Amino acid sequence: MIDLRSDTVTTPDDEMREASRTAAVGDDVYGEDPTVNDLERRAAEAVGKEATLFVPTGTMGNQVAARVHTEHGQEVLAERESHVVKYELGGLAQHSGLQVRMLDGGPRGIPTPEQVDEEYVEEDAHRPGTGLLCLENTHNSKGGVAIAPEKVADTARAAHDLDVPVHLDGARVFNAAVALDVPVTEITDHVDSVMFCLSKGLGAPIGSILAGSEEFVSRARRTRKLFGGGMRQVGVIAGPGQCALENVADLATDHEHARLLAAGLAERPELAVQEPETNIVLVDVAETGTDVETILERCREAGVLGTKFGPTTIRFCTHRDVDRGDIEAAVDAVAGVLA
Amino acid sequence: MIDLRSDTVTTPDDEMREASRTAAVGDDVYGEDPTVNDLERRAAEAVGKEATLFVPTGTMGNQVAARVHTEHGQEVLAERESHVVKYELGGLAQHSGLQVRMLDGGPRGIPTPEQVDEEYVEEDAHRPGTGLLCLENTHNSKGGVAIAPEKVADTARAAHDLDVPVHLDGARVFNAAVALDVPVTEITDHVDSVMFCLSKGLGAPIGSILAGSEEFVSRARRTRKLFGGGMRQVGVIAGPGQCALENVADLATDHEHARLLAAGLAERPELAVQEPETNIVLVDVAETGTDVETILERCREAGVLGTKFGPTTIRFCTHRDVDRGDIEAAVDAVAGVLA
Amino acid sequence: MIDLRSDTVTTPDDEMREASRTAAVGDDVYGEDPTVNDLERRAAEAVGKEATLFVPTGTMGNQVAARVHTEHGQEVLAERESHVVKYELGGLAQHSGLQVRMLDGGPRGIPTPEQVDEEYVEEDAHRPGTGLLCLENTHNSKGGVAIAPEKVADTARAAHDLDVPVHLDGARVFNAAVALDVPVTEITDHVDSVMFCLSKGLGAPIGSILAGSEEFVSRARRTRKLFGGGMRQVGVIAGPGQCALENVADLATDHEHARLLAAGLAERPELAVQEPETNIVLVDVAETGTDVETILERCREAGVLGTKFGPTTIRFCTHRDVDRGDIEAAVDAVAGVLA
Amino acid sequence: MIDLRSDTVTTPDDEMREASRTAAVGDDVYGEDPTVNDLERRAAEAVGKEATLFVPTGTMGNQVAARVHTEHGQEVLAERESHVVKYELGGLAQHSGLQVRMLDGGPRGIPTPEQVDEEYVEEDAHRPGTGLLCLENTHNSKGGVAIAPEKVADTARAAHDLDVPVHLDGARVFNAAVALDVPVTEITDHVDSVMFCLSKGLGAPIGSILAGSEEFVSRARRTRKLFGGGMRQVGVIAGPGQCALENVADLATDHEHARLLAAGLAERPELAVQEPETNIVLVDVAETGTDVETILERCREAGVLGTKFGPTTIRFCTHRDVDRGDIEAAVDAVAGVLA
Repeated sequence: MIDLRSDTVTTPDDEMREASRTAAVGDDVYGEDPTVNDLERRAAEAVGKEATLFVPTGTMGNQVAARVHTEHGQEVLAERESHVVKYELGGLAQHSGLQVRMLDGGPRGIPTPEQVDEEYVEEDAHRPGTGLLCLENTHNSKGGVAIAPEKVADTARAAHDLDVPVHLDGARVFNAAVALDVPVTEITDHVDSVMFCLSKGLGAPIGSILAGSEEFVSRARRTRKLFGGGMRQVGVIAGPGQCALENVADLATDHEHARLLAAGLAERPELAVQEPETNIVLVDVAETGTDVETILERCREAGVLGTKFGPTTIRFCTHRDVDRGDIEAAVDAVAGVLA
Repeated sequence: MIDLRSDTVTTPDDEMREASRTAAVGDDVYGEDPTVNDLERRAAEAVGKEATLFVPTGTMGNQVAARVHTEHGQEVLAERESHVVKYELGGLAQHSGLQVRMLDGGPRGIPTPEQVDEEYVEEDAHRPGTGLLCLENTHNSKGGVAIAPEKVADTARAAHDLDVPVHLDGARVFNAAVALDVPVTEITDHVDSVMFCLSKGLGAPIGSILAGSEEFVSRARRTRKLFGGGMRQVGVIAGPGQCALENVADLATDHEHARLLAAGLAERPELAVQEPETNIVLVDVAETGTDVETILERCREAGVLGTKFGPTTIRFCTHRDVDRGDIEAAVDAVAGVLA
Repeated sequence: MIDLRSDTVTTPDDEMREASRTAAVGDDVYGEDPTVNDLERRAAEAVGKEATLFVPTGTMGNQVAARVHTEHGQEVLAERESHVVKYELGGLAQHSGLQVRMLDGGPRGIPTPEQVDEEYVEEDAHRPGTGLLCLENTHNSKGGVAIAPEKVADTARAAHDLDVPVHLDGARVFNAAVALDVPVTEITDHVDSVMFCLSKGLGAPIGSILAGSEEFVSRARRTRKLFGGGMRQVGVIAGPGQCALENVADLATDHEHARLLAAGLAERPELAVQEPETNIVLVDVAETGTDVETILERCREAGVLGTKFGPTTIRFCTHRDVDRGDIEAAVDAVAGVLA
Repeated sequence: MIDLRSDTVTTPDDEMREASRTAAVGDDVYGEDPTVNDLERRAAEAVGKEATLFVPTGTMGNQVAARVHTEHGQEVLAERESHVVKYELGGLAQHSGLQVRMLDGGPRGIPTPEQVDEEYVEEDAHRPGTGLLCLENTHNSKGGVAIAPEKVADTARAAHDLDVPVHLDGARVFNAAVALDVPVTEITDHVDSVMFCLSKGLGAPIGSILAGSEEFVSRARRTRKLFGGGMRQVGVIAGPGQCALENVADLATDHEHARLLAAGLAERPELAVQEPETNIVLVDVAETGTDVETILERCREAGVLGTKFGPTTIRFCTHRDVDRGDIEAAVDAVAGVLA
């Protein structure tokens, strides 16, 4: 089975397994796990922040960040299709009492500085003030588009000019950096905090990193405990996380595979294939006259897995557990399904 | 001073004062205040619902309704400029853990059935389900537009077809009914609950009504207590509320005054005046070359009060405490300010 | 019917009705209601605080105070039988995310300084810190006991020494002051904020006062709006509230009536009557061999109303709407019921 | 260094490391991780429940359980020194809007059925109803006491008779079962849900299990996502978790070590040592005339770590990473410190 549902399905390789087996460990609630401490230090360096915190999931990282940046009852600006709004069970309201003001980020999922200015709310007797801007890069729902540093900078500056902090859901921010061929810090320098996943394209089995200032991370550590994220001998998963940090350059291969897949699928005139920028390929199947569920089921029978991503849209996601041969086989399988 | 800031500034007339003075009262927490019981019965009849509850403010009515209709952590669909989203301190998130999905209701502030269908979210492992649709009629931020019963019906039906209940913020729903010349029940019949204010154009000093099914109101009564809205000898304000219910027909005069005001102001070519449908007149002053604050300050010096309602917009609101002479004087005063 | 269920049943007298009828009013959301402004000023003077805020209920006053004093997620120390814990629908947790640490205040409902020291929690990685101490005086559930200023001072000092602010639920704090024959400020001087009710023994139909520093009240005003307590022409109930402030001395009569009632009931050997300190009389009926519900029902038939207050306890509450004759009649009626 | 601060410091042994290295994995958010699926099945069998859920921490397990069992705004009964109340950052209020009613469970930390009856609150217009009883076994703060099945049964029955569900914080429930020499199901049969830790005495690096009915676990799975606990290739930590389940019998050794430690320390007349029932030894150092911090610091210098557990109390905790020789050395070291 060629599994293109998500890069979350990547399984740890032998090196990661070995890193876990040999990791020095300690009780991370006491701050004594040397492996996670080392990972947090390296991760901070990687994204150019003072400090970082290992969290079990990207969702926890985003939600902890929102909680720490804001006061209960403020507003958050976020792109309407962004993960933090769409796929985190309304956690912004549930955990932090935040009202979301959803911005339409257009086909690239990046709100403009003008939108930030327009949707910013100044606190008064009737209105909750804007307390946070959340961005997402790459933007999953828009098809893994890689948002250029200048765009991030412009929108973040608009928020900062209004004294609003900026959190970046960078679950796949290294995909963005690799695709744009820039150091990731050219993106992360413009935001106050960033979360990125070790567990997606980078291949770690579990874990994400939340990065920011020393003071931010210190408060995030306590909030992580509140959320039930204060684990013990974290080294056994931080070890693979260290390997994951070394896998950044490999993302280029996933992107190449995505382009290959897109090109192959685009041969079928009844498919509308979005040009991939990173490792996500969105395919509109409206013209096939067959519904998404049926096509996905037939693909499954033909040995290829994808995800329904909209009424007529399928998402295929490349990752380190599929190779060029798998991609070619996937193209053939889909062609067969449609023929 | 001709106070056109809001119809909330209306003061109780002699009849209301007398109704308060002579009201039979009891402890409403025990359900023993005959005046509020009578008002709640009459109000139920007026809007065609099984039961109603007196609440000290419209904000409490809306927030209690949202809490009762939903489960903690769901989503709410609401027009992005609606009062419940814009002016209630993010209460939907704060009180009920609800994520708001803001719909753009266009110039008339009424989301279409298609928007409800599109923005509806089915509960799954990652997504909070849609638990409520909130409508507003008349829509304050859009300039007091009166939304036709058919429009309310269409949008509400879309929600009901998805098993989503509908709450109407009808703070000024009687203005809508009068302007459209329909019984208010033609509007309220399509929604599960409605809040309307006794304290705006209807002239009562304090209070709003929340209406719905017996079971809804029974739960709302308990939630009102949680919010600190369980008052004692409520008859002293319910008495004026009874008078307010008799004032519905008078709203036509306010609407006439609004048209008169709009027509007068529209004489000035530098003002862009929105045609009023009820008692609200929106005036765009961009072409005057003077900023809103300055114009409002000069109007105040000339004896007329309005409200800043946007970067270049002023809202004037007519009500039972201003008469035709006041309107004419206001037009002259504004003309003088601009001259 | 002689209604001794609660002093909340008091109805406004002619003077209050007239004060309402003639009250100058304005829109209190704009801060323009002269009567409520005057009441807030007078109330501040009465309890010796910088500022006050009119709220529709004591519950809202207590809950707003807790919200303003604390950060979401702290702990509150409160007596386990106190109103804020027992009868406000768990609002401390619901509105403000506060964990209550219930202290046993003994027969007089006042935690000792030692209890405050012991139950105080210093914030750390696992523990929410103590953010507030709530006291209640008179203490309703303990039978309206009047807690002496020195006791309030001692316990409040223990909290202050730990940098924990103190809120007093003084729904009946004027009863305490009158019973103890001290200026109320001897009690309120020791706390950071105090709520007292205009609507109980003082006779106003609606309303309570929340008092504290200018800054506290400014924040409370915004939080009141969040709770739906920002009303409009508040003068119509603030007028009676002004009269209520003049009724303080009359509470002595209620206390005398309570003693008279207690003495009369104590004639019956099967009744265990708690010596009243203010206007509340607790009667244990265990020795009668009849259950509370039956006794209360028979009392009702005999023209006297009381409240079940525990498995074998009845509460009778005196107030300005019952006179000496009513008390004597009530004693006779109860005697008849038991005979 | 002989680390007796907590059994959370246990590090995974070679078998666990190997189990992690070779674990079959998949994406657990899709339910496709075979190792965690197998662990969840085995764990359900172990505690005699229909289903279980792997959670990253015991805190998350407890908090998710409370959220699933209750409605927002109810009350919880819990022992006042229990972990869920004391060490989880007030999560019951923060996550679920629950008011805690703390029961004094006496020296053994188990509330009586009478206390449940007395503190149970029936929902009415003013009072939140009791929605959950939380028990803890072994009870950490009371010194790891092992509560007998009959005691659990009696207290749980009192709750069930009132239609109140019961959750057991069984972080160390296997210690209880081993100490009492009963199958753990004799304890867990009486409760609706139980959380136990794989990561304490059982030695796994990370993870706890939440067990209950199929329906409970299905809802808990969604709530886990809300809390940010939906991880990916969980097999790498579930593999060690499977080993941990095999370690139950070894807990007897930890208990023997605790008795040995207690006996050794009790030789010092200035130490008041609580007789251990499981793996926790509480030592009161008041009579030494030296404060806890100083003693702990000197112990550290002498190569032994313990935890401050009260103003004059130290906790030592035995676990699989210390052997008999360590215990003897620890006794000597402490003796040296005190000498």
